[in-house]
Amino acid sequence: MELNCDLGESFGRYRIGNDLAIIPFIDAANIACGFHAGDVQTIQSTVQLAKDHQVRIGAHPSFPDLQGFGRRKMEFNGSEIYGIVLYQIGALAAFTKVQDTQIHHVKPHGALYNMASQNKTIAKAVAQAVYDFDCNLILYGLANSCLTEAGEELGLQVAHEVFADRTYQPDGTLTPRDEKNAVIHSMEDTLKQVELILNEQTVIATNGTKINLRADTICVHGDTPEALEYVQTLRKLVKQ
Amino acid sequence: MELNCDLGESFGRYRIGNDLAIIPFIDAANIACGFHAGDVQTIQSTVQLAKDHQVRIGAHPSFPDLQGFGRRKMEFNGSEIYGIVLYQIGALAAFTKVQDTQIHHVKPHGALYNMASQNKTIAKAVAQAVYDFDCNLILYGLANSCLTEAGEELGLQVAHEVFADRTYQPDGTLTPRDEKNAVIHSMEDTLKQVELILNEQTVIATNGTKINLRADTICVHGDTPEALEYVQTLRKLVKQ
Amino acid sequence: MELNCDLGESFGRYRIGNDLAIIPFIDAANIACGFHAGDVQTIQSTVQLAKDHQVRIGAHPSFPDLQGFGRRKMEFNGSEIYGIVLYQIGALAAFTKVQDTQIHHVKPHGALYNMASQNKTIAKAVAQAVYDFDCNLILYGLANSCLTEAGEELGLQVAHEVFADRTYQPDGTLTPRDEKNAVIHSMEDTLKQVELILNEQTVIATNGTKINLRADTICVHGDTPEALEYVQTLRKLVKQ
Amino acid sequence: MELNCDLGESFGRYRIGNDLAIIPFIDAANIACGFHAGDVQTIQSTVQLAKDHQVRIGAHPSFPDLQGFGRRKMEFNGSEIYGIVLYQIGALAAFTKVQDTQIHHVKPHGALYNMASQNKTIAKAVAQAVYDFDCNLILYGLANSCLTEAGEELGLQVAHEVFADRTYQPDGTLTPRDEKNAVIHSMEDTLKQVELILNEQTVIATNGTKINLRADTICVHGDTPEALEYVQTLRKLVKQ
Repeated sequence: MELNCDLGESFGRYRIGNDLAIIPFIDAANIACGFHAGDVQTIQSTVQLAKDHQVRIGAHPSFPDLQGFGRRKMEFNGSEIYGIVLYQIGALAAFTKVQDTQIHHVKPHGALYNMASQNKTIAKAVAQAVYDFDCNLILYGLANSCLTEAGEELGLQVAHEVFADRTYQPDGTLTPRDEKNAVIHSMEDTLKQVELILNEQTVIATNGTKINLRADTICVHGDTPEALEYVQTLRKLVKQ
Repeated sequence: MELNCDLGESFGRYRIGNDLAIIPFIDAANIACGFHAGDVQTIQSTVQLAKDHQVRIGAHPSFPDLQGFGRRKMEFNGSEIYGIVLYQIGALAAFTKVQDTQIHHVKPHGALYNMASQNKTIAKAVAQAVYDFDCNLILYGLANSCLTEAGEELGLQVAHEVFADRTYQPDGTLTPRDEKNAVIHSMEDTLKQVELILNEQTVIATNGTKINLRADTICVHGDTPEALEYVQTLRKLVKQ
Repeated sequence: MELNCDLGESFGRYRIGNDLAIIPFIDAANIACGFHAGDVQTIQSTVQLAKDHQVRIGAHPSFPDLQGFGRRKMEFNGSEIYGIVLYQIGALAAFTKVQDTQIHHVKPHGALYNMASQNKTIAKAVAQAVYDFDCNLILYGLANSCLTEAGEELGLQVAHEVFADRTYQPDGTLTPRDEKNAVIHSMEDTLKQVELILNEQTVIATNGTKINLRADTICVHGDTPEALEYVQTLRKLVKQ
Repeated sequence: MELNCDLGESFGRYRIGNDLAIIPFIDAANIACGFHAGDVQTIQSTVQLAKDHQVRIGAHPSFPDLQGFGRRKMEFNGSEIYGIVLYQIGALAAFTKVQDTQIHHVKPHGALYNMASQNKTIAKAVAQAVYDFDCNLILYGLANSCLTEAGEELGLQVAHEVFADRTYQPDGTLTPRDEKNAVIHSMEDTLKQVELILNEQTVIATNGTKINLRADTICVHGDTPEALEYVQTLRKLVKQ
């Protein structure tokens, strides 16, 4: 089990996230590749930061949507998705290469992540791009989703991801962010969810249904005021 | 001596260039990487096209300026230039990798090319990005310019580039495009310039000055109505 | 009855459409506002062109999607749609103002047009932006659709639009472009459809169903090789 | 004399500035128009905010450079500058129109402001766009610069702007931001500069030279941690 966090999401003069404070407590960093966030200097310094802290580096490709922070659904066909993901992995890989390190995994961002969790065509396109670039990369996807399935079918190593502070729907997908109970705000409830995941590989959906899921990695959010306290607390629970 | 041409400069629904007709006549293709032109599907198909015709593939990185087609001067510091060039090489490299081929050279585009020809800081940033990504890549730059010099100082292989249809200023730089005699429009004058380059490694500047220059590769333009006839004619002159 | 055409869809060095040849044959021009196509100089010259030919000027707002030419569905809430449409109308209005002319109508572009035809929230947001900017503007929308209905409910003047060269589905919406029979390719079939519209205010859907619709304006496409012949032929049929 | 401040510079999920806290203390707000900052919802809410506080609304047009926050020099000809400025004024004007208020002035942003202060072609293009859109708008420009001169030559009302916390070069232009003494960091020195401006219409340049300048409006920055204290202090000095 590991803790992963989205980093490098600043852009130009705009700052998001508390990367410096968060990084000592996580195992894997998903680095924005310029499509929803991240400019070349942010990419460069975030790769450096991850390397310095021996944190595993992941590409965090997105739809091209800076204004919507990659959270807006957009219509792309499989061939376009393949190209978008490949382009961003390649761009990030150039920065890891010049710093004598390498990409460890790929985790799609935002709407691309959610759509790939539920749509087989999109899932396959993402997985194929990862596989074709480097079949040793690990694909991170929502636990028990179309995305992890597409990766497994190709023979990719897959990390089933669970969320500490997001609620689940009965079908195992995350409650969309525009619904009011999408995010778990209390630390107590968050810890309860994480403990259930760790001990029983289970989450309780919003309607009370018990969902069994495989859990290889837990996503923590680094961009809220309470993020630091939050990550520190989770770190105690989740052994590296 | 070789013929190189900028390809893959379409974008979305917008078409530029006659890539299919031109490619049989050239030795090297400089492929747009998405900053001044080129979307992921155009990149993908242009890499395929170059591979099919055994044409050498070059990255053609630019300032981020789709509207100005990368021909607009922009102010970036060396660190930003380094990042911009690296990002675009990496993105293109992902597409060559999945098609079992590779990048052979890097040639900056438009305003970046021109500024790197005359400004040492910019030239060094471009050359360093190429070198750090892969020290076996060949840097294409204006013959006898800051850019080729910066590459040579780093120990990169460098291709000194000359232009068949552009006029030269007495200092060896190209006449800027907004001046009226920047482009040589007659085929006769173009051939005269090329023959002088091939036979005497010399061009005649706009004021009549004779300039000696090293010439390893000739740039031909593929986006004019006469491009095909033009490339066919040059091909007869320039032995592969 | 009038003929309208989308104009001003070039961008930077990229050219689309044969605006100069088409404009003498149309009554109304829908001018791209920079989000799917059109840069400031294209907007300026297209407004001039329309004014010179006494062609009615319409704003042609779109989702922000240059690469997808505004044809890609994107997820925006009503408030965002309102802002996007308002912004683009305002931008175009500045160019009509300095040329002593004015906007006559607003017609959404591409995916925004199609989504507003079928989704009440989007339709209302578009109509409200038009109404708030200037309640004398005419809203162009797919005949008998959510969009025209939303305009009528607000008290806007509405032009029900029909398409000469697109096929209709039984519910009165256009067959999506990614289906193979979306576009009518033969001039004979196009004219048949137009005559049926003019004489009986009817179209025949792809499944043979007869659809009654109000038809105030016919859209003609100006960006195909046969566009000129096409517009000239329609012009003879459609009296100004 | 008045206090003006740049507002509405957030973008998507990215926040900049403390607009809510600052607005009670200023007289005029320069609102970003989407080219260097500001999305449609930020524009809408910032216009509302200014109206609620009876603060004068200005358009704050910029080069198209979100990543560089409009602070990057870019090469545009006069005709392009004219179009860029006009487009942004028009877009903002749509938002003031629907809220029954109006634009009071135009102040170019960042590199466009600085280049227009020193380059006559650019200054004229900016001033002409303002004049053509509405000859009653007030042009804000660096005191005693090319920009204010271009406005005055056209017959525009002009507000000569001075800066409380920026140092001046002997020629009356601002010390560029990349030089280390560009910004005055101590409140004491800032107040000294403002008092000299208010009492003697004079600033002391970095080399000690005394510069006489007309001062109609003082720019205050709202995006630093100390901004609120800073604006409150200046407000006591500068009578409305």
